[in-house]
Amino acid sequence: MTASCELCTSDGGEVLWRDALCRVVLPDDPLKQTGTCRVIVERHVKELSDLAPADLAALMQVVVRVERALIAVLKPVKINVASLGNQVPHVHWHVVPRWTTDRSFPDPIWAPAKREGVVPSIAREALVEALRKHL
Amino acid sequence: MTASCELCTSDGGEVLWRDALCRVVLPDDPLKQTGTCRVIVERHVKELSDLAPADLAALMQVVVRVERALIAVLKPVKINVASLGNQVPHVHWHVVPRWTTDRSFPDPIWAPAKREGVVPSIAREALVEALRKHL
Repeated sequence: MTASCELCTSDGGEVLWRDALCRVVLPDDPLKQTGTCRVIVERHVKELSDLAPADLAALMQVVVRVERALIAVLKPVKINVASLGNQVPHVHWHVVPRWTTDRSFPDPIWAPAKREGVVPSIAREALVEALRKHL
Repeated sequence: MTASCELCTSDGGEVLWRDALCRVVLPDDPLKQTGTCRVIVERHVKELSDLAPADLAALMQVVVRVERALIAVLKPVKINVASLGNQVPHVHWHVVPRWTTDRSFPDPIWAPAKREGVVPSIAREALVEALRKHL
């Protein structure tokens, strides 16, 4: 636990699932992309290589479950997965559903927008409920 | 093997390391960021969730080794790891070293450049040799 780290001191969004290793959240901030979830390690570790192999394997199986939940609920054409942590160096995965009509497809979601994106419309409460059911 | 997939029909760069599951390459194309490596699954699979748990765990240990090699050789401030595959839907990880002085830090490397980046200067041959030694 690091007092200055926002992922140590807050959940970082609405918790969809959690165990001793990590939590799955739907961020509170306006999303660049509908359905983007984060999988956040509970301990403060900076790099993937700071995790024991068994913990990293277990973490990736949570990422896989989030991926499958997003595919089931939102039917994206692709899932993007990234661990960046340049701003908050506490390991967390972004799990991002993509559609060919979204703002920057096929570029990464962080690239400049190519168009006004069209993505599935779903109320946040319904999304939370559906993802929880699949996790 | 998919005949229309460029990661099935070519190595996708200079091979630094390889086993039956995956290969580590330094891409041939001009890199956005010095030292960026790719870890490419040998089989044609689209999503992380298409890999058996043991294969995904082993793949992540290769990513960890690349991460550690990049830290040892190039001393970045952070490593970014991403599996996107919007353009080539064949699982491959981008393992990207970051420096506070690079073109877009702390934003993702795919975001618009904030500055003319300054990153460590190393000849490609020396980089290949150093990374191979650490892998």
